[in-house]
Amino acid sequence: MPAAPAILNFGAGPAMLPERVRDAIAEDVRDLGGTGIGLLEHGHRTPAFDAVIEAAEAACRRVAGLGDEHAVLFLPGGATLQFAMVPLNLLPPAGVADHLHTGVWTAKAMREAGRIGRVHVAFDGEAASFRRVPTAEDIDPTPGAAYLHYCANNTVMGTQMPEPPPADVPLVVDASSEILARPPRADVHALIYAGGQKNLGAAGVTLVIARRDLIEDGLVPPEVRDLPTMLDYRPHLHAGSRLNTPPTFAIQVMRRMLEWIEDEGGVDVLAERNERKAAILYDAIDGSGGFYLGHAEPGSRSRMNVVFRTPTDDLDARFVADAAAAGMVGLTGHRAVGGLRASIYNAFPESGCRALAQFMAEFARRRG
Amino acid sequence: MPAAPAILNFGAGPAMLPERVRDAIAEDVRDLGGTGIGLLEHGHRTPAFDAVIEAAEAACRRVAGLGDEHAVLFLPGGATLQFAMVPLNLLPPAGVADHLHTGVWTAKAMREAGRIGRVHVAFDGEAASFRRVPTAEDIDPTPGAAYLHYCANNTVMGTQMPEPPPADVPLVVDASSEILARPPRADVHALIYAGGQKNLGAAGVTLVIARRDLIEDGLVPPEVRDLPTMLDYRPHLHAGSRLNTPPTFAIQVMRRMLEWIEDEGGVDVLAERNERKAAILYDAIDGSGGFYLGHAEPGSRSRMNVVFRTPTDDLDARFVADAAAAGMVGLTGHRAVGGLRASIYNAFPESGCRALAQFMAEFARRRG
Repeated sequence: MPAAPAILNFGAGPAMLPERVRDAIAEDVRDLGGTGIGLLEHGHRTPAFDAVIEAAEAACRRVAGLGDEHAVLFLPGGATLQFAMVPLNLLPPAGVADHLHTGVWTAKAMREAGRIGRVHVAFDGEAASFRRVPTAEDIDPTPGAAYLHYCANNTVMGTQMPEPPPADVPLVVDASSEILARPPRADVHALIYAGGQKNLGAAGVTLVIARRDLIEDGLVPPEVRDLPTMLDYRPHLHAGSRLNTPPTFAIQVMRRMLEWIEDEGGVDVLAERNERKAAILYDAIDGSGGFYLGHAEPGSRSRMNVVFRTPTDDLDARFVADAAAAGMVGLTGHRAVGGLRASIYNAFPESGCRALAQFMAEFARRRG
Repeated sequence: MPAAPAILNFGAGPAMLPERVRDAIAEDVRDLGGTGIGLLEHGHRTPAFDAVIEAAEAACRRVAGLGDEHAVLFLPGGATLQFAMVPLNLLPPAGVADHLHTGVWTAKAMREAGRIGRVHVAFDGEAASFRRVPTAEDIDPTPGAAYLHYCANNTVMGTQMPEPPPADVPLVVDASSEILARPPRADVHALIYAGGQKNLGAAGVTLVIARRDLIEDGLVPPEVRDLPTMLDYRPHLHAGSRLNTPPTFAIQVMRRMLEWIEDEGGVDVLAERNERKAAILYDAIDGSGGFYLGHAEPGSRSRMNVVFRTPTDDLDARFVADAAAAGMVGLTGHRAVGGLRASIYNAFPESGCRALAQFMAEFARRRG
């Protein structure tokens, strides 16, 4: 087997896997666990796949610290389908969904919720160009709202909520870009959802962690809103995420990522590592004498996506090209913000952050 | 690399891949096309994935014989989500959806459509235990129906429509278990959908082939039914199936399966091969002197799923165990029908059908 190529992939997602997971998955495709049958070729109701989905759920429960009061679902359609499933399931016709608006993704979530019911923008970050996330004082909640929805980490703006916002109502979080990069705080969230392609392996599966009572009893009743089966959390729960053929491959990748998190020492260890990784890059920005400028306000900075720029668009483009020549790819900023972005999810190595920081310093010396 | 294990997998899906595709995908996971980055780790808006999805669509168009009048979409959620998306998009509030009821899957499709609008059962196969599919004379159409929906091949009952049914209205087909195992007849179908996990590679992506005008102009207007974005065909079409992060891995597997079909000589060649494969097994049943009994009536027999039984449940169980000992697995019938089932999709080799037929003859001699 050739050695893994020495490319540092800073892409925003789908994103880098740990080498160990990548190798194991490639072998799974050939032969799942010595069964003589490849991962893609096992039926979803075979003992081999029973073992996969049970191990995935068990690892999720251990790593996220979940009890019996929590349901774990593996669903299709990405966070975008959750933007609709959350209000379809949790927003009664007379209810209000409170939303914290912190950028591109929350706008999409609000648009989907607004098709289904009433939305109240309890914080609007647009005037501040989404450079900062709200503190508790910034939030204007609706008394008795059906739920409060927010996005934990914004990949485009490079912002991240330091803590879950306070809420007297069920708290729903789009954690797609930070799931299990720090403790998920299942104690304060009613529903957590995350696409798999950033911190949990492959595009094609969405992890949903929800309070079981919310799904079982707290739903909009069927006589009020008779949902398509695939959009109703309850049948997925009752079918153990096998209502139909689930994305078997992506579930096995997620299982391997969850077990990798455990092998690395768990979410707390990764959270500390992620703090260190981000600090390396923010130090490189702050120590550049103004050559690099971060997009987010310091108190709102993301540990997952470091968004910054050089003094000019031309230098940004040169930075991307020179970095690629040095084996560092995926550094172009999102088109909505421009500039540069380094995405450093769980699987991204600390050594890669040091390499980028060194490159940044050299680039600033040469071009500054 | 060890040789592929000598197991014949007769599972109903997810199902066997051609060895060549399996090997290529395992390598893609390590390094996609010499990019130095694995398939799962490429962003969905990178040039590398542009090449994947463009190649998938182009191969689909060549293999299925599609023109510009057809749209090709890669969607999440399996056929089960299509059971809802079809009526949500195509069944106006005052309209009627005609359905041919040929078993488990059509029941599910009718239930989802019935949540959204009026359903007329234009053929009901239940009284005949779903052993046969309708001929043209059996169908009782609604004049001016919004569309006629049917399932081309029933995996559980082992039945298959010999031809698409005649229809004066748009014809919609669930082709999940026979897609591109014979010519898809895009000339007579308004919309064809199929989960990927039987004939097109991996669970997690659904191929939708639809008349472009049906999607662009023929939809239920938004003022009548304001759909969640993910459930509306139009935005998927406009976004080139990249409305959000699509199941990138499953799309590359589908692309490799489509290119494999082409390499094998195309759908016509596979259709002939599939005829021969099925005939080998049906001959084994019919030539057993009554030891084996096929479930479907001869004119309704499936070329994809051969459903049969021995004289007793005990012998069925013994058959499954003895076959497994001989390296032939996945032969247990669906719980709704019992008995035995051999699924022999595109990737299943003709030699495997001969091996099973030989085993069947020997088993009947020993136990009969």
